[in-house]
Amino acid sequence: MEGEPTLRLRVFDLNCWAIRYLSKRRQERVRLIGDTLCQEGFDLVLLQEVWSEQDYSDLKVKLASCYPFSHYFRSGVIGSGLCVFSRFPILDTLLYQYSLNGYPYMLQHGDWFGGKSVGLVIMKISGIIFNVYITHLHAEYCRDKDSYLPHRLVQAWELAQFIRHTSKAADVVLLGGDLNMHPEDVGIRLLCGWTGLQDAFVEATDIKGCKNGCTLVPNNCFTDKSELLPFPLGIRIDYILYKAISSFTVKCEELKTTMGPAPGTDIPFSDHEAVMATLHIQRQGQPVGATLGTADPALADVVTEARTEVGVGLRAAQRQRYSSGRMAVLALLLLLLQAVAALGTLAGLGADQPFPKLSFCLLAFLALGVLVLATGLHLFHTMEVKMLHGTEDQMWMALRALQERPSEG
Amino acid sequence: MEGEPTLRLRVFDLNCWAIRYLSKRRQERVRLIGDTLCQEGFDLVLLQEVWSEQDYSDLKVKLASCYPFSHYFRSGVIGSGLCVFSRFPILDTLLYQYSLNGYPYMLQHGDWFGGKSVGLVIMKISGIIFNVYITHLHAEYCRDKDSYLPHRLVQAWELAQFIRHTSKAADVVLLGGDLNMHPEDVGIRLLCGWTGLQDAFVEATDIKGCKNGCTLVPNNCFTDKSELLPFPLGIRIDYILYKAISSFTVKCEELKTTMGPAPGTDIPFSDHEAVMATLHIQRQGQPVGATLGTADPALADVVTEARTEVGVGLRAAQRQRYSSGRMAVLALLLLLLQAVAALGTLAGLGADQPFPKLSFCLLAFLALGVLVLATGLHLFHTMEVKMLHGTEDQMWMALRALQERPSEG
Repeated sequence: MEGEPTLRLRVFDLNCWAIRYLSKRRQERVRLIGDTLCQEGFDLVLLQEVWSEQDYSDLKVKLASCYPFSHYFRSGVIGSGLCVFSRFPILDTLLYQYSLNGYPYMLQHGDWFGGKSVGLVIMKISGIIFNVYITHLHAEYCRDKDSYLPHRLVQAWELAQFIRHTSKAADVVLLGGDLNMHPEDVGIRLLCGWTGLQDAFVEATDIKGCKNGCTLVPNNCFTDKSELLPFPLGIRIDYILYKAISSFTVKCEELKTTMGPAPGTDIPFSDHEAVMATLHIQRQGQPVGATLGTADPALADVVTEARTEVGVGLRAAQRQRYSSGRMAVLALLLLLLQAVAALGTLAGLGADQPFPKLSFCLLAFLALGVLVLATGLHLFHTMEVKMLHGTEDQMWMALRALQERPSEG
Repeated sequence: MEGEPTLRLRVFDLNCWAIRYLSKRRQERVRLIGDTLCQEGFDLVLLQEVWSEQDYSDLKVKLASCYPFSHYFRSGVIGSGLCVFSRFPILDTLLYQYSLNGYPYMLQHGDWFGGKSVGLVIMKISGIIFNVYITHLHAEYCRDKDSYLPHRLVQAWELAQFIRHTSKAADVVLLGGDLNMHPEDVGIRLLCGWTGLQDAFVEATDIKGCKNGCTLVPNNCFTDKSELLPFPLGIRIDYILYKAISSFTVKCEELKTTMGPAPGTDIPFSDHEAVMATLHIQRQGQPVGATLGTADPALADVVTEARTEVGVGLRAAQRQRYSSGRMAVLALLLLLLQAVAALGTLAGLGADQPFPKLSFCLLAFLALGVLVLATGLHLFHTMEVKMLHGTEDQMWMALRALQERPSEG
């Protein structure tokens, strides 16, 4: 295959929604996904939300003959949920855990426990070095008042930086995953602008499946219809992005999404639709050069916009750090007051009045509980402030670099 | 300077031991470090344990004329402590936080709160691209029974992987920092073997300062003498490592350490000695190629040794996960029993006996406290297991790659 002029690569990407005990008809759907992947014979499969290692192991056994190479990225409390299956050998892997990923106390939004990350898998196909990235960013629970936007922007920025810094020896970069951002969102513009990645849906010559390439559609029986009310056609939040770095070009021949129920069954693979891209990779006579820099003035605006949002998050985190710190101090003061009162009683002061032992103990425990929780929160928000501040700094450095060297990548 | 055949680079590395409220004579020492750096005029300064951003800002103001470029890496609760000062422009930065870094409940060993990381700074000096890494790994508190060894090995592995994956476009790689490992330790052999980095102390033609290049010496008035009892000359745990990637060679002309008190004063810079290296970087006629692979059979042994230690850590973490989980279940059972007893009393059962309200409440709060703590511990050790398991997997993949392609980098 070495030296072959054109390589055709079929990529499959899906957020599997395979949360043990919580996702509906999980095992049935994982079996269905496995069967379809075997039949269809893609080259590369990028799966998210495979939260159970048992599901991964089952898939690995089932797919062993058609996808002999695979990797599961472990992180967080319940795992990263990210895994890759491939027809071609995986040479190396690396995991980067995002520094911010929601709040551990938001139990109803379990993102924090997933340890959201980006996984890198390096492969060599027909002599071409592929850096394949797979990720899943923090969910958007309320678009109008999206309190997780600063965290998602930090993730998008770290994702872009990670790709830029680790892909310098690659010929082709691929990124697949659930980015939880609409195509026009600032995070997507930041990611694409800062890395030079192109959107397979935008570049595709042939598009099949859901209208506008949507991957969260009302037709899917597992989606939450109320969330999609403002978007009757659905939304597009799952992506396949790509770019060629050295002397190669990548073209997207076909982009396809699934449309609700899988063929021959009554259920879809997941609450998301799968994205499938057929890419053509061709060797060029001479290096193409960095793709960054073509739209620099616009890119500076995008970085500024993202930085403003991160700044909003920073100020919110500073407020929360302050109020949790104040709460901890108040609880500590209450405990000290109680200690004084208890010592006073022991010393015989006010011995004529009955000492309310029970309420006293209850109050002490309450104060202690508040102290522990508020201290924990204070530490957490201090870390959050650090990371938001650090990202603001990095973005500022990027802006300076864009202004100083407008034509350099 | 572009095209100059030889570049001479003077690098300064120091663990500053600048912990607010805890480190002795901190402000005096930070001033002293700043003054010396101004006088000596190094090209590149790598500082660790600058925990206070105020100290960094003060240094930045003082060093503005001789080191106009600098970067502070923010992470964790109290920061990463890592910062870089440079005579040459910093083009880009990236921070990678290690996935494991001790335990939050080991308050006396504050490592967890520092958010230990590796920082990358990219610079272009005389047309040569430098990837400069700065890091500080988890401390070793007891060499005979080092319970943090698996965490430090995971960090050394992640450091090596991060360097390998991010340095592919660099001409020269530099790593400076407090690695908290002796030169013969498995972590150092793993780091050097897997990245191809060379130890400036080993390669230097001229060595000055403490014997054996030690950086933690009994002569220093701030060191804990009891810790150094088995090592009368001291230990070497601070390093400057380097390698040339493409068509360059790097040679260490001189390696120097400080020796206790700074010249003209009665105090040393820190409890660590500073490491200073003078490097000669020369352009070669043709690419040197990857340095990895020269000692592959030995490298496979090193990776196996490291993997065994990570496995030991994994089993310990699994035990802790199990026992904290069991404790949480027992606390929950106790709470349920108490709820049944309370309901029984409310229903009028055993009304002839006085109900011990106070002890009952105390016990309930105790059980609740244990439940919360044990659940937290269980979550933490679950994450620890995931990361140790993931590292074991990655090391296994590396071993397979070493065995399959013994000559490739």
